[in-house]
Amino acid sequence: MAHINHNYLKLPGSYLFSEVARRIRAYSEAHPDREIIKLSIGDVTRPLAPAVIQALHAAVEEQAQAETFHGYGPEQGYDFLRCAIVEQDFRARGVEIDKDEIFISDGAKSDCGNIGDIFSADNVVAVCDPVYPVYVDTNAMAGRAGDYDARRGGWSRIVYMPTTAENGFVPALPDKTVDLVYLCSPSNPTGTALNRAQLQTWVDWANEHDAVILFDAAYEAFITQDDVPHSIYEVEGAKTCAIEFRSFSKTAGFTGTRCGYAVVPKALVRDGASLNALWNRHQTTKFNGTSYIVQRGAAAVYTSEGQRQIRADIDYYRSNAQTIKAGLTEAGLEAFGADNSPYVWAKTPGNLGSWEFFDLLLDRANVAVTPGAGFGPSGEGYIRMTGFGDAEDTRRAVERIRSVLEHL
Amino acid sequence: MAHINHNYLKLPGSYLFSEVARRIRAYSEAHPDREIIKLSIGDVTRPLAPAVIQALHAAVEEQAQAETFHGYGPEQGYDFLRCAIVEQDFRARGVEIDKDEIFISDGAKSDCGNIGDIFSADNVVAVCDPVYPVYVDTNAMAGRAGDYDARRGGWSRIVYMPTTAENGFVPALPDKTVDLVYLCSPSNPTGTALNRAQLQTWVDWANEHDAVILFDAAYEAFITQDDVPHSIYEVEGAKTCAIEFRSFSKTAGFTGTRCGYAVVPKALVRDGASLNALWNRHQTTKFNGTSYIVQRGAAAVYTSEGQRQIRADIDYYRSNAQTIKAGLTEAGLEAFGADNSPYVWAKTPGNLGSWEFFDLLLDRANVAVTPGAGFGPSGEGYIRMTGFGDAEDTRRAVERIRSVLEHL
Repeated sequence: MAHINHNYLKLPGSYLFSEVARRIRAYSEAHPDREIIKLSIGDVTRPLAPAVIQALHAAVEEQAQAETFHGYGPEQGYDFLRCAIVEQDFRARGVEIDKDEIFISDGAKSDCGNIGDIFSADNVVAVCDPVYPVYVDTNAMAGRAGDYDARRGGWSRIVYMPTTAENGFVPALPDKTVDLVYLCSPSNPTGTALNRAQLQTWVDWANEHDAVILFDAAYEAFITQDDVPHSIYEVEGAKTCAIEFRSFSKTAGFTGTRCGYAVVPKALVRDGASLNALWNRHQTTKFNGTSYIVQRGAAAVYTSEGQRQIRADIDYYRSNAQTIKAGLTEAGLEAFGADNSPYVWAKTPGNLGSWEFFDLLLDRANVAVTPGAGFGPSGEGYIRMTGFGDAEDTRRAVERIRSVLEHL
Repeated sequence: MAHINHNYLKLPGSYLFSEVARRIRAYSEAHPDREIIKLSIGDVTRPLAPAVIQALHAAVEEQAQAETFHGYGPEQGYDFLRCAIVEQDFRARGVEIDKDEIFISDGAKSDCGNIGDIFSADNVVAVCDPVYPVYVDTNAMAGRAGDYDARRGGWSRIVYMPTTAENGFVPALPDKTVDLVYLCSPSNPTGTALNRAQLQTWVDWANEHDAVILFDAAYEAFITQDDVPHSIYEVEGAKTCAIEFRSFSKTAGFTGTRCGYAVVPKALVRDGASLNALWNRHQTTKFNGTSYIVQRGAAAVYTSEGQRQIRADIDYYRSNAQTIKAGLTEAGLEAFGADNSPYVWAKTPGNLGSWEFFDLLLDRANVAVTPGAGFGPSGEGYIRMTGFGDAEDTRRAVERIRSVLEHL
């Protein structure tokens, strides 16, 4: 008799975005005349860069001719893309990464979700709170999280590290045994980033404790501040303790086109085994490579035209986030993020709950945001807004919110 | 201190195709004047169908405009593709599958590799011998295989079901407890297929024992015989005991373009849990959908032009396989497959070992094949050849092999 993985049954439903959508829909149906502007959107809206489009068309055309047709490719990705990454994402920042340390994938969600496979089930995992839910859920599915406590909204074996305004959104080093730590910088959802000194503290701790840092750098392209590393490998010692995840989703609008990569340094060894070799085994056994066409599109991001074009989109989104942050700040809210991120994270006024403020903004401003409590207990009392919408809509939404706040 | 998944360290190296490549390279270097024809190739060689190319270009163009741009799509795949599958892969064969039972992926290797995630680690797994190595390796990585015995070339907790000429390549029902069974029909590597009555026996057994059949139908498009089901769901009772994997790789040349799908019926329940719900949770948590562009290309396979075009390629490959099988048979070898498959599986002459016959053919015929022993102990004494090459090259290779066999 086949038995299921019972860890799946422990997972609570993932209600955040469906509940947000449900409330928006209900409000729209009750008030069909109101135009709702969504600052809740977590997806890019601008089209792919012309250089990427051109490369995609060219790759499709290659697949149309026997002479240029590409069948199975290397599971780790094509050298044309791995080498471009080595040069431009790393060497240009003074970091030497070998191309064999780069594993091209269909996106950072897959990599973040699958990386646990190469670790034993008894490792203790630490995550920031609030947090991107994939880190926690995939560990729960692997039996690493213990049991879920609905009352406090957390798992018994996961170590939660609050990141709030009180600690400047910098997680404190754990005071108990932790083996794997997920860090996301710039962070989803808080929009804040860890600077070089803060990352150095984490890298030193990880090396001292033989822990492994799983570093999610999906938003690195939004970084503007000099002391915020784009890669954890800019920090001394990171190659012996960190795996890094990158994505073309927010960098180049690939959320629906799908490409990302993981960096697993050869110097990263645990239990005497090379994690690079283990991840290589994972990818060659459970994955058959990212679409050739998509890899060609991703490589075009690294051309000079590609870089200029994606920069314009990144600036557009971040500028929207700045508009939101500035508007909320002027209206008296405490707002964070936006400097190195498309996200703004703001405290609710008058100690309103996340969902209360969500409902208030939806009803009075006709603006949709995302309640911070949905990202973890320490997100209560905050909302998340994103710069991924239209610039004019964003300005109008901020005006509406300000008007509501003035009359609270 | 982080600990690794020690099951990875138990895996033997995957030497088959690298050893084949090494011997071909060594021979070529020693005999630079000889032209080697590869019947060992396991990848398609013909370009994508024009209808697919057209759809890919159109989808790329959609990604170039904000109005038609597609960001995150449903993790389970777009309805335009799921509905085409429901209609043409299933309803057209009298099988009712709901679109919510279809999960679009980046290929059958990912699905076959990941499906174990929703089952407990203590299930007993059975595989055919010879077999596609992914089934075994991924279970070994999950701790379900026990220990590897290099001498007999097998794992202590895996149940191996020999499929050889002696039993007509039909695996016998297990005489011990088995919870999960991988069946591949038409089979890689033997090229043989299970007919309706044989599959019915397996489905009845699985329902009786609450086992689950993991049915790999990646080669179904090559089926010509009426009594060979294209889907296991053509067999009564399969929806309560089987998950099916499909691929566009061999069907439509997508080995480098990447698309496949899994079918997980809602009627499939174990431990009181819906496997459809569990797989949905896996895909929504660890995967972010298949590239929109690629899904549009896959959907074009189902247009009338697409169907006509892919049929021509499938017939071309199968015709090559028929050429190989007929030639070897006339030369006195026992050859199998090719009727419903691009693969030919043949007994070596005079009880030669797989690798001995490989070396003999490479040296005397300058033809590369794949030694059967590489697919499992019961593959010893066989070779695999494929119809994926050029038709004229295939005819010449067969002539060369016949000439060698006549002088043995």
